[in-house]
Amino acid sequence: MTAFMETLRTRWTDANTLVCVGLDPEPAKFPSHLQGDPDAVFSFLRDIVDATADLACAFKPQIAHFAALGAELTLARLIKHIHDAHPGVPVILDAKRGDIGSTAERYAVEAFDRYDADAVTLNPYLGRDSVQPFLDRADKGVILLCRTSNPGAKDFQDLDCGGRPLYQRVAETIAGDWNGNGNCLLVVGATWPQELASVRSLVGDMPFLVPGIGAQGGDVAAVLASGKSADGAGLVISSSRAILYAGDGEGFADASRAAALDLRDEINRYR
Amino acid sequence: MTAFMETLRTRWTDANTLVCVGLDPEPAKFPSHLQGDPDAVFSFLRDIVDATADLACAFKPQIAHFAALGAELTLARLIKHIHDAHPGVPVILDAKRGDIGSTAERYAVEAFDRYDADAVTLNPYLGRDSVQPFLDRADKGVILLCRTSNPGAKDFQDLDCGGRPLYQRVAETIAGDWNGNGNCLLVVGATWPQELASVRSLVGDMPFLVPGIGAQGGDVAAVLASGKSADGAGLVISSSRAILYAGDGEGFADASRAAALDLRDEINRYR
Repeated sequence: MTAFMETLRTRWTDANTLVCVGLDPEPAKFPSHLQGDPDAVFSFLRDIVDATADLACAFKPQIAHFAALGAELTLARLIKHIHDAHPGVPVILDAKRGDIGSTAERYAVEAFDRYDADAVTLNPYLGRDSVQPFLDRADKGVILLCRTSNPGAKDFQDLDCGGRPLYQRVAETIAGDWNGNGNCLLVVGATWPQELASVRSLVGDMPFLVPGIGAQGGDVAAVLASGKSADGAGLVISSSRAILYAGDGEGFADASRAAALDLRDEINRYR
Repeated sequence: MTAFMETLRTRWTDANTLVCVGLDPEPAKFPSHLQGDPDAVFSFLRDIVDATADLACAFKPQIAHFAALGAELTLARLIKHIHDAHPGVPVILDAKRGDIGSTAERYAVEAFDRYDADAVTLNPYLGRDSVQPFLDRADKGVILLCRTSNPGAKDFQDLDCGGRPLYQRVAETIAGDWNGNGNCLLVVGATWPQELASVRSLVGDMPFLVPGIGAQGGDVAAVLASGKSADGAGLVISSSRAILYAGDGEGFADASRAAALDLRDEINRYR
């Protein structure tokens, strides 16, 4: 099995895309012809996956949207479908877990063994030992929150910690001490280009998962100018709602494909 | 339905206990007579719940231990059993969730609607809007990580933020700005009595969830001396492994009861 980081780099170059398709099922927004379907969550997301796979550097299911529906089995089926039908497109489980060592090990089992994800998002607040069971899985991606895309990011992430904000201290610690296996990435929101640039200057070419394009207001040109690595990649730019709910009739998957294509091309103009 | 905070205070006074029984199923540690039982997780935890309910101010299932086993339905059944068989003993879902607003709302549905938990643990790193959907549920407890019990707590929580450590800034922000509904609690580890005392001095009688007694090395006398509120309560002192795996034969639930009783009495000596 190829390691996540290598798979991701191959997608950036060979498939020429930095687009990550976020899979956040909201059944109320599904097309009307799926509303009576007991398997609507799977049917909807499978069709979008199949329509966008060649345009995606990764798929990113957000686990809360499945958990709130009691749809864990659907999530597992969806990830298996991605692996079977689209080998080479990695799956990032967006879970933002974080707990003490013995419990962190159980969360690693959840993400990597139960769901067979290739990477997972984590919260760094509990420190090194809370992340160690994930870091030890050298073939898996460990994606740590740094500067998030939401308004409340300012509350603690921007606090001055000895002359620089907390999120920069987090970035430096991860790049300097936690990345021995070379499998760390950082979450930096598209809504903060200045912060994106400051983190890029601290961590070399470490990849970033960048949410916040589209519905949250992030600008593609600014994200690329501030965040790309020296080789014009280094970014996993995630879009969920703008791709998933681009159309609402029988042709919803075609509309999603068109939205993903537009985003890929817009991003590539600035690489 | 009685609000979590009122239920908790009633348990402290009427049941005279600060013990929280942590429910972290590890099937390899179950008694041998349960090893072949396909419903062993439920059977084991139900028997311990029934044996310890009168000694508990709360039960705290840790969701990673269920998720790693694919046992979400068992978790839901267990919480329903606690509500049905032991009304008045609240359930804290230990999940340490944290995500942006629209996703946080889905996690609130997971904890409070799907599982019918009375309180949930959360990670504050993403700031106010990531916690708002939980704060808005005034009848539910919102338990925020402050200074955790693990060694890695030092990595970021102790960083100097303008003259005081991050965990104190987190405590002040929650007590000052986030607690309008009076439904916030903080997680402060038993392994750090000095930090416990410093947080207590900042937040008045806000309750603390205190993990780290027992297996992690926290000392009961030090926790009470440092952390109790003015009325000799204010603490939800959690023990998981030392209670759950106190015995290993047919009488495992009696052994768990004895361990919970010892802990309750030891705590009460220092109130």
